[in-house]
Amino acid sequence: MKSNSTTTIANHLVRRFKECGADEGFGIVGDFALKLFDRLHQLDFPILVTADEQGAAFAADAYARLRHFGVCAVTYSVGGLKVANATAGAWAENVPLLILSGSPGIAERKNDPLLHHRVKNFNTQLEVFTDITVAQAVLNNPLTAAKEIDRVIREMITQQRPGYIEVPRDMVDIDILDEEQPLAIELPKVHEKRLELAVEDALQWLDGAGDSVAIAGVMAVRRGLSGELLDFVEHFGVPMASTSLSKGVIPETHPLALGVYMGAVSSQQVVDRVGKAKPLISFGVLYADLVMGGFTDHLDRGQVIECTDTHVNIGYRTYQDVPLWAFLPALIEAAKLRKYREHPKQLLAKPRFILKDKQPLSVERIMACLASVIDDRHRLLIDPGDCLFGSVDLPAPNFSLSSAYYATMGYAVPASLGAGRATPDCRPVVLVGDGAFLMTALEALSAKFHGVNPIIIVVDNKGYGTQRPMMDGPFNDIPLLKAEELIKPFGVGTGTLCEYESEFSEALSLAINHEDLHIIRACVPKDGYSPALLRLTDALKKRI
Amino acid sequence: MKSNSTTTIANHLVRRFKECGADEGFGIVGDFALKLFDRLHQLDFPILVTADEQGAAFAADAYARLRHFGVCAVTYSVGGLKVANATAGAWAENVPLLILSGSPGIAERKNDPLLHHRVKNFNTQLEVFTDITVAQAVLNNPLTAAKEIDRVIREMITQQRPGYIEVPRDMVDIDILDEEQPLAIELPKVHEKRLELAVEDALQWLDGAGDSVAIAGVMAVRRGLSGELLDFVEHFGVPMASTSLSKGVIPETHPLALGVYMGAVSSQQVVDRVGKAKPLISFGVLYADLVMGGFTDHLDRGQVIECTDTHVNIGYRTYQDVPLWAFLPALIEAAKLRKYREHPKQLLAKPRFILKDKQPLSVERIMACLASVIDDRHRLLIDPGDCLFGSVDLPAPNFSLSSAYYATMGYAVPASLGAGRATPDCRPVVLVGDGAFLMTALEALSAKFHGVNPIIIVVDNKGYGTQRPMMDGPFNDIPLLKAEELIKPFGVGTGTLCEYESEFSEALSLAINHEDLHIIRACVPKDGYSPALLRLTDALKKRI
Repeated sequence: MKSNSTTTIANHLVRRFKECGADEGFGIVGDFALKLFDRLHQLDFPILVTADEQGAAFAADAYARLRHFGVCAVTYSVGGLKVANATAGAWAENVPLLILSGSPGIAERKNDPLLHHRVKNFNTQLEVFTDITVAQAVLNNPLTAAKEIDRVIREMITQQRPGYIEVPRDMVDIDILDEEQPLAIELPKVHEKRLELAVEDALQWLDGAGDSVAIAGVMAVRRGLSGELLDFVEHFGVPMASTSLSKGVIPETHPLALGVYMGAVSSQQVVDRVGKAKPLISFGVLYADLVMGGFTDHLDRGQVIECTDTHVNIGYRTYQDVPLWAFLPALIEAAKLRKYREHPKQLLAKPRFILKDKQPLSVERIMACLASVIDDRHRLLIDPGDCLFGSVDLPAPNFSLSSAYYATMGYAVPASLGAGRATPDCRPVVLVGDGAFLMTALEALSAKFHGVNPIIIVVDNKGYGTQRPMMDGPFNDIPLLKAEELIKPFGVGTGTLCEYESEFSEALSLAINHEDLHIIRACVPKDGYSPALLRLTDALKKRI
Repeated sequence: MKSNSTTTIANHLVRRFKECGADEGFGIVGDFALKLFDRLHQLDFPILVTADEQGAAFAADAYARLRHFGVCAVTYSVGGLKVANATAGAWAENVPLLILSGSPGIAERKNDPLLHHRVKNFNTQLEVFTDITVAQAVLNNPLTAAKEIDRVIREMITQQRPGYIEVPRDMVDIDILDEEQPLAIELPKVHEKRLELAVEDALQWLDGAGDSVAIAGVMAVRRGLSGELLDFVEHFGVPMASTSLSKGVIPETHPLALGVYMGAVSSQQVVDRVGKAKPLISFGVLYADLVMGGFTDHLDRGQVIECTDTHVNIGYRTYQDVPLWAFLPALIEAAKLRKYREHPKQLLAKPRFILKDKQPLSVERIMACLASVIDDRHRLLIDPGDCLFGSVDLPAPNFSLSSAYYATMGYAVPASLGAGRATPDCRPVVLVGDGAFLMTALEALSAKFHGVNPIIIVVDNKGYGTQRPMMDGPFNDIPLLKAEELIKPFGVGTGTLCEYESEFSEALSLAINHEDLHIIRACVPKDGYSPALLRLTDALKKRI
């Protein structure tokens, strides 16, 4: 039975947002978006302000990575076009991030006037977002608006990509047709017979194989399969690595967790385990250069069970229409029936950090010190650069966020706002270089403004350090920002400058035990890189 | 005689940049852009680093407004897509801003791999910039690269719009064909006979008309006609207003300068003079909502001589192919032949500011105090919001910069870097609201890093104040940033908090006399608006 009635765009949007898992959005208002923001607020879907729109989009992206849906609300062009990069990042890394934009009213567009924020024509913003999102809608028709909203959201979830919805300001309070249907999400389709055969085939490969290894990738996370991944590990007794995009999807403190596999960036132990695995079973891994350490991976395709969002490859055989979301649960079910071996579930003890006196800081020791104090009440947010590489050696207590493939700098600080709001029980711990920090540092204030208390560790190597070994020049030098002094203009938080291990250890310990915004600037030598980055450099040299 | 020889892309780019007036660019490097940045530096075309790419694009935009060409250099996607908004602003406001982007090498793209920074495909960034620039080129062919560069730059200058050039990193050192021709710029074409008639016609209208008024708009500035505008004023004795986009194109301290005409935002005196003008002669005015005070202008089209970039309308007659760049000099030439009256050239004395004791600050008094101390060694940079409206009552000593039509917040602080580098003799004085300041505040450090010493006046009305009268809610509230304390993390400059006129006057006086970065946070009441904004609100109310 469907009943036709009317509602408003804001009502329908908020209903869908909450169904999809989002309770609030991030964004900055403007005159073309005022009414939209007001109605969303009245419907208990607040839009949390940030310093700049870019920060709002990164925050909403992080929120989406944890809640499976995120909303960034902006005004026309001057807001929307500021988040083109963040939206592109959501495309690249499969994040269902919705860009919701106010725009000039339909009536105002008559005679094509030059209204402020307009670019080539009234469709310029739509055209830009058509290039970087999976579905778009301009809600200019009351009869189709609800369907259009549903179409965009459905495509976003089906394909795990960003979407775009534009609301002309004179449409906000118009009655729209609403069929009051639940949102019908279509996951990638399943061929039941092939699923059965694929499970059978995979079990034969896995059966009794003592040296099999699993890799959990980003699509496994996006499809909400974290619990199943842990089940898989514990039922099959197969050690599991993650990728940098899915770091911590099972706690890296689990005895069967191998940590991040990132080609030559990973430790020799991980490289060996993955390289020699027979079979290697991968769940939703994005096979991209940075994810694979600049393609320094050595995976024997003949020995791989590759489970993707649409199909499963077992060695050289492909099972079409056997998507990960159906395959992984079926595989676990089969394992349960066969009463596979039981495996230990007790997490490993935290590694101890033995302080070296008067020892200047290094990326390696920052990671080691951090590993000794964080637990499952903390979530790592890691910016690209040597923080990303170095974090490969840092066991994450739970799912960590990073722009680890698209590699947009300045992601982690605003992402801490989104992450902190999405999962309030998990305090954000940000690892960011000085170059990336300079891009979005003021979003630390936004986080605090909205009740999030990140610990921000600025690893200061005096410029764009990761690039210096490739090619150095004045373009890698940046102005010094004394990050720890930012708490003065903020008027809140605690800032600490650290040059020695003892200082860092103390500052970190204080931060962990003190729920407030903490900014710790950890100085490392200009040419001091993480062991992980040095491993990569070595591997790349060998390839040449 | 043309000689064919070879050169490199970087060589050809730098040659053209310098021909067009640019000696340096602004931007942030990335691995796909490293070689390009390095070669530009070696060719004495440095790319000045900023905090975030957005700041670089705004700086380059400001540079272009003063030097008639600006370059923002970025890396692929994560750099380029961050400047989509700034580029769109350059489109809207007719700025020849070039976005120069590094990108993956042609060879690397083989087999379509997922390289970091990639979005949908390797053309995504190009497609986005196709929506917001006038000409685009990906330099993947050594035989056509030089011609492609010239085509993009030529279109940018002809149409006064932004352009896009992408350099795959394996093309940087390739020999390219170079015909060694000078860059042939095509200005809008001229029909000589119509030009002659248009001048004749205009002279008849202007002849003896004691109440004619001129308005100089943005295209007159873009075509480099500032000198001619002053000549016009002094030869015809016609008072001249500007628009907010061309504020100060003739010094507003000139006895014949009327200040900014912005519809009802302007003072009654200016509105009356412009409204009653017979004839009103406009030079390159962009007829847009914000420029015309939300279309609160009252221009009698039958009494207007309208000179545009392509044609002249005199009353209801149109002279096609009579572009401003040809018409204005011809009109002045004719005036000279007729020995028109001479007019005073002595600038007016600076208005005095009589300090009121214990008087809390207001936008009006900030403008008045500023007017009393700035002179032609200062350049105003004005962010949208009440700073823009209020500045209508502040006489600018010379050409001022503002995103006065596109109205993108956060423009002015990074623009001060570009302006300071473009015209080192003219110290930037920034007027910015607290909301806009929060967006790009760290670019004040970039300015200082590159030797520019702006005076930044943060008019703090505690949130997005201009929007509160339209619709208020929590979305207009922002976190407090104590702007004056930013000098602590910067480690340079002087910061002052002012609540009273006396404090502001003192701080400003210190800043004017002390060449350093100054950040003055001037607190005004949350609901304290400029007289200009109140005039607009009144007019809009009457219209309803």
